Amino acid sequence: MSRLVNRVKSFSTAASSLLADASAAASRSARPRASFQVFRDVPELRQLRRQLFKNDRTMGLVPTMGALHEGHLSLIREAARENTDVFVSIYVNPTQFGVNEDLSSYPRTWDSDVEKLEKLNEELGSLGAGTGRITAIFAPTSKIMYPTLPPSSEIDGYGSFVTITPLATKLEGGSRPVFFRGVATVCMKLFNATSPDRVYFGQKDVQQTVIIKRMVKDFLVGTEVRIVATAREADGLALSSRNVYLGARRRTVGLTLYEALSAAEEAYKAGKSSRDDILGAARSVAERVLSEQQTLSPSERALYEIDYISLADPETLDELDLVDPNRGAVLSTAFKMAPLEETKSGEDCGLGDGKVPVRLIDNIILQPQA
Amino acid sequence: MSRLVNRVKSFSTAASSLLADASAAASRSARPRASFQVFRDVPELRQLRRQLFKNDRTMGLVPTMGALHEGHLSLIREAARENTDVFVSIYVNPTQFGVNEDLSSYPRTWDSDVEKLEKLNEELGSLGAGTGRITAIFAPTSKIMYPTLPPSSEIDGYGSFVTITPLATKLEGGSRPVFFRGVATVCMKLFNATSPDRVYFGQKDVQQTVIIKRMVKDFLVGTEVRIVATAREADGLALSSRNVYLGARRRTVGLTLYEALSAAEEAYKAGKSSRDDILGAARSVAERVLSEQQTLSPSERALYEIDYISLADPETLDELDLVDPNRGAVLSTAFKMAPLEETKSGEDCGLGDGKVPVRLIDNIILQPQA
Repeated sequence: MSRLVNRVKSFSTAASSLLADASAAASRSARPRASFQVFRDVPELRQLRRQLFKNDRTMGLVPTMGALHEGHLSLIREAARENTDVFVSIYVNPTQFGVNEDLSSYPRTWDSDVEKLEKLNEELGSLGAGTGRITAIFAPTSKIMYPTLPPSSEIDGYGSFVTITPLATKLEGGSRPVFFRGVATVCMKLFNATSPDRVYFGQKDVQQTVIIKRMVKDFLVGTEVRIVATAREADGLALSSRNVYLGARRRTVGLTLYEALSAAEEAYKAGKSSRDDILGAARSVAERVLSEQQTLSPSERALYEIDYISLADPETLDELDLVDPNRGAVLSTAFKMAPLEETKSGEDCGLGDGKVPVRLIDNIILQPQA
Repeated sequence: MSRLVNRVKSFSTAASSLLADASAAASRSARPRASFQVFRDVPELRQLRRQLFKNDRTMGLVPTMGALHEGHLSLIREAARENTDVFVSIYVNPTQFGVNEDLSSYPRTWDSDVEKLEKLNEELGSLGAGTGRITAIFAPTSKIMYPTLPPSSEIDGYGSFVTITPLATKLEGGSRPVFFRGVATVCMKLFNATSPDRVYFGQKDVQQTVIIKRMVKDFLVGTEVRIVATAREADGLALSSRNVYLGARRRTVGLTLYEALSAAEEAYKAGKSSRDDILGAARSVAERVLSEQQTLSPSERALYEIDYISLADPETLDELDLVDPNRGAVLSTAFKMAPLEETKSGEDCGLGDGKVPVRLIDNIILQPQA
């Protein structure tokens, strides 16, 4: 383990002093004061949270599974604009992975995550008193998050769960039946553990944003759900922790999700409102690119399956035959990028050498036109 | 509607003044100041709660479905001993009633409930500064508690739910499949709406206490679950809102639950630890009384069905073949009191004239003997 682990340990021991007397803590050590504390358990985190509340500070929570990229950082920046304190949780939640899904291969990059957050905190500090800072990282173990039973990944499995139906059964839920049960469950726990004034989610996971908003409303959770625009590469590819598995060839072809959605958005902006017109524009892009790839040799091409292309209501996620211009719609899609069939020597095939299948999702909100 | 409704209205308008300037409110009216506020919605209640927290006051929540009896009052007294402020929620939660259960016939007694709470607050006030007071009644509508979908009473129905399995499928859950899903769901909402330091439940609903403790633990809810001993009549009958339907004849026979459990407890205290020995003692009482009733004429007898008599682990509620003296056990039972077959003129048959079937439950904790 690296130097960073030692730094993280020093954050933890600084926890109680930050609550009590920061200057005394600073004088005890010549080391520069850690810019945030790392919490593995709930009671100390809750104590800090109560202290912040009593001091009229506000807190925004950014839940993550680590493997932080610019998309996460944009959530934290937004949280720092709107709150004096930002809590970032880093926890790879097992209950949102199905039995045959990629829990074990999900990237775990603790050291570089902490480094990115330290650097971001410096940036936030340079923005002056009007911008908040990252105060706490919550990085619990599964024993803390699931204290009783080993969490089940079976849809009929036992456990303590939050279920939000029928929303959780649609779109992503079709191929990932336990996913949103896991997401809602872990978010309820995170919200209970931290009592955030605001919580921040990326538009990229649009169904997650709809379900979390519904959960907060239905369960009278005292927090505000803030959605931040999808962070994209210059060419439009949505940032994702899974992109590291793509490699150059699949990355180029993976851009097709955004191109297909953009074509559909153009149709909507040009006045189309029927499902066939809007989704037809997306499908023709997705199918054309796939045909082109299929004509190439196995060492040149990247193939994919289209899981779904959806045009749905923004709150119910019911599929739409016609977009109501007063409500707009959610246009979303998921592709399964197949493993590379053959690789060339020296080729950038991504983490896992192109052998890891990668499921990509993307979406565009069709804004109300009224 | 009665005088009490007017008094309740005056509580509601006093809400903002209690938060701001109580003396100004008092001077506006010659009426004695209402001793608690009634809230129909969450935002004002949350505002009061935040104010209490900032003033270092503590709050205990007593969730009820109204029809208050001495059992509820004992919960409130305990909450007032341990907190400066007590919130009482009164809400008949539809999602814990099955499709064919007694939601429509569940007693609704708002005026007398408010009267009892006013009287209790006088009593608490007389106990001096060390005892808390009832500060708020939360009496929401179903639109507030279930803001999105009409709540489902079907086990496969859609909705936003908290499920705690397998605990919720045992004992009471066997004959009431949606009951604990409804209880856990509404309690999560109440806890989120009020952020109680402590919550109070009666030992009488033992499975509910086990499930709420599990929910609080598994979902990292920042509250302490306090269980208060079952309040009983002088002869041992457990108090229940449903007792008003019994009438004299069924009330006498209904005492059999407690007698059967007491016989089993005696066996345990006398050193028995096997299921057959302990439950055998209970069953022989329950079956003897039923045989005796069956020999009587329809105008004299009260019949019942034994739903279950259980000997279970205190945390998992798994049925036990043998009690571990280090863990103790939960001894519990449910009887279905049948409607009276024939009534006599002038007989006290209870609310509903003896025609309402009444399900009674009771339990005794077999304490660890280590």
